[in-house]
Amino acid sequence: MSMEALRVVYRLRSVGAEATRRAEALALEQSVEMPIEAVTDARVLRDVVGRVESLEQQGDGTSLARLALSAESIGSDAGQLMNMLFGNSSLLDDVGVVDVDVPATLNSCFGGPRLGIDGIRSLTGVSGRALSCTALKPIGSTVEDLARMTRLFCQAGLDVIKDDHGWAADARASFRERVVACQRAVDEAGRGRSTRTLYAPVISGSLDAMRGQIRFAQAHGVSMVLVAPMVAGVSNFHALRREFPEIVFLAHPALAGNQMAPAALLGTLFRLFGADASIFPNHGGRFSYSRAVCAAIVGALRVPLNGLRAALPVPAGGMTVERVPELVAEYGRDAMLLIGGSLLIARDQLAARSRAFVEAVAAASSEVAT
Amino acid sequence: MSMEALRVVYRLRSVGAEATRRAEALALEQSVEMPIEAVTDARVLRDVVGRVESLEQQGDGTSLARLALSAESIGSDAGQLMNMLFGNSSLLDDVGVVDVDVPATLNSCFGGPRLGIDGIRSLTGVSGRALSCTALKPIGSTVEDLARMTRLFCQAGLDVIKDDHGWAADARASFRERVVACQRAVDEAGRGRSTRTLYAPVISGSLDAMRGQIRFAQAHGVSMVLVAPMVAGVSNFHALRREFPEIVFLAHPALAGNQMAPAALLGTLFRLFGADASIFPNHGGRFSYSRAVCAAIVGALRVPLNGLRAALPVPAGGMTVERVPELVAEYGRDAMLLIGGSLLIARDQLAARSRAFVEAVAAASSEVAT
Repeated sequence: MSMEALRVVYRLRSVGAEATRRAEALALEQSVEMPIEAVTDARVLRDVVGRVESLEQQGDGTSLARLALSAESIGSDAGQLMNMLFGNSSLLDDVGVVDVDVPATLNSCFGGPRLGIDGIRSLTGVSGRALSCTALKPIGSTVEDLARMTRLFCQAGLDVIKDDHGWAADARASFRERVVACQRAVDEAGRGRSTRTLYAPVISGSLDAMRGQIRFAQAHGVSMVLVAPMVAGVSNFHALRREFPEIVFLAHPALAGNQMAPAALLGTLFRLFGADASIFPNHGGRFSYSRAVCAAIVGALRVPLNGLRAALPVPAGGMTVERVPELVAEYGRDAMLLIGGSLLIARDQLAARSRAFVEAVAAASSEVAT
Repeated sequence: MSMEALRVVYRLRSVGAEATRRAEALALEQSVEMPIEAVTDARVLRDVVGRVESLEQQGDGTSLARLALSAESIGSDAGQLMNMLFGNSSLLDDVGVVDVDVPATLNSCFGGPRLGIDGIRSLTGVSGRALSCTALKPIGSTVEDLARMTRLFCQAGLDVIKDDHGWAADARASFRERVVACQRAVDEAGRGRSTRTLYAPVISGSLDAMRGQIRFAQAHGVSMVLVAPMVAGVSNFHALRREFPEIVFLAHPALAGNQMAPAALLGTLFRLFGADASIFPNHGGRFSYSRAVCAAIVGALRVPLNGLRAALPVPAGGMTVERVPELVAEYGRDAMLLIGGSLLIARDQLAARSRAFVEAVAAASSEVAT
């Protein structure tokens, strides 16, 4: 297997001889998907069949198997990469993906973010501090309510105001109505400020539908969209990335599951396929990620990597304004904190609560070493 | 919540008061995604917020929570259905989807298979018996090898010869080369037979790419394609279903994961979105599904349902010719048995082994009561 292979570390729920057997079976399952004794072509045996490169028994009754998968079986399609990485093995109960190491050729093939952290800073005009983000909720609100909320958040100085990821394009407040009303709200309420608030509508549906949504949004001044790559299909996400180089793609983790390590999927792969920013459920919120898992996601999004731009980590999921100093200390200035429901819970104090969030982010950022 | 809600049964890894708390949290997570006390709109509280309809403690330390999710938050998009069903909760370690009950309005909105079992029988000319299917392997083979294999399988009387799901469109034997060579092979080798062998190439990539592949294939006489809906994105799969009403869609389970009950995903939902046939890993093969799980998948694909056509169950995954009588007895005539690697292992006896498979399916079918 050449240097150009995709290296994947899988966790197997077995040890010893059984783990060896499972690792070998996995190498076949994720490449030629047939018994090795039935492969007659010498080139296929040499270049295409997956290889077990190492197998390490862990203390907890599991083993870590490092496999090399041929770039030939991956091609240049993001969906095919997911398929070779975890297509069939995702159906199994005893296998998970722990880590993915992408060869330089695949990095240049997919290209990563077009804007990334630097592009987002340039669009918002925010430098030297972390960014703040909130969400328009709940689904079912009228477009007037959404516009009012957007205006309020913008006046409070939020950097990004995104749709809830659950808004259907054909909901009561339709995609087009939301874009027109909310983009106008940020344009008007943000006038004269030194930084620019971005409204990020959620795109959904088929590639055709998403493409139409972005075109409409872009024509109305929108420069950032929210998308769930695992719902959209990563090939379509990647196609949009290429088609709209000036749009910031904010990735949502919906449908990412719990079988692949979040750092591999929400970090390495979403960045590879072009996410400029990636939302993940922060530790201590209503989701179950640990502090170490969150640190690994952030590392995967920001680590210097074969010329790929760094993507902006967006910790979210049940965060509160009170935790802002801790979060900025943990993630530094190159992060965007997303607080949604816990702002809205302030109800008639929403404006004050939103300003408190923005001020807390600025204050905490000034405490962080550059 | 109206009758038109999507009913979903989730398994929670908790009991008692903790399960009640988790179920209520899930109803919010999968609908408005914010604290209930922050929802001020009475209509949203009444019509949009998810509801816990029942909660049953199980003997194994888990609970089954039945939730109603508003059709309003689902809209008419397959991806949005997946998103509301399991978008955020897929990230959790203590929640799985056990069952999905789709309301009649959503069934007619999505429409299900266009051809289904009857359409596949009509295209192949096979009646009164189960069908046989095999796969072209391994990835990396030359197009000449593939054409030779296809001819041999067709002469042996296989009903469907599909690509391996791992073939990238731009592999050495490219999609176009495979289609031209393999479709010609079935056209020539099948001439004069009373039944017709279908070659099913795998489509992959973005919606644009898949659409182009189907158009090319259809122009060359192909009438069935293999597609992995969870890789493609279900909205794109559904878009293709609508765009190509004469194409048989054979669904592959790649990337389906193990967090949703296979009967719900590979059965109910794949059928709903338009799969005419659905491949699943059979019990006793190299995957871990139980006999009961397989029976539930088959039930979900074939049960009479609001006028949706029945889809063809395709048990696969490490099957052997020796198991054909058992499998036909279990699944009946309205099934297609898929045996891949275990035929190829016969190497120079491949033709004889393939004929034995076809004959075993016919013989076993005649034993089954109609």
